Amino acid sequence: MSSTPYEIRQTVGTISENAKGWKKELNLISWNGREPKYDLRSWSPDHERMGKGVTLTAEELRQLRELLNGMDL
Amino acid sequence: MSSTPYEIRQTVGTISENAKGWKKELNLISWNGREPKYDLRSWSPDHERMGKGVTLTAEELRQLRELLNGMDL
Repeated sequence: MSSTPYEIRQTVGTISENAKGWKKELNLISWNGREPKYDLRSWSPDHERMGKGVTLTAEELRQLRELLNGMDL
Repeated sequence: MSSTPYEIRQTVGTISENAKGWKKELNLISWNGREPKYDLRSWSPDHERMGKGVTLTAEELRQLRELLNGMDL
């Protein structure tokens, strides 16, 4: 995965951090120079390494927000 | 990934579906018989194949909900 060029355009926020300093973040990322997409995944403290994750469109985030707002968390 | 035993305990909801019928879903999944975690990823129409995704705790979903509710989507 590290061979795919990417650029973090915006860090929307961090939703957790583990003992090793890896953070689960929602970012706006451009992959391979394409139009940026939202992206939810873990990152090492220096943003050098990434874990598995999902890319999400704004519409998917809207649907996810609706789901979460209906949950008893 | 298909070698890891898992059980979908609850489908919380679907946030999108592509032209091939793959759905991006939020599920509550037990991996390897462990305590179930929330999980956001793509699934084939028959749930036989999965895409990459992230597992999330209830606390991470709460933080994510707060982030999303603060966004202008």
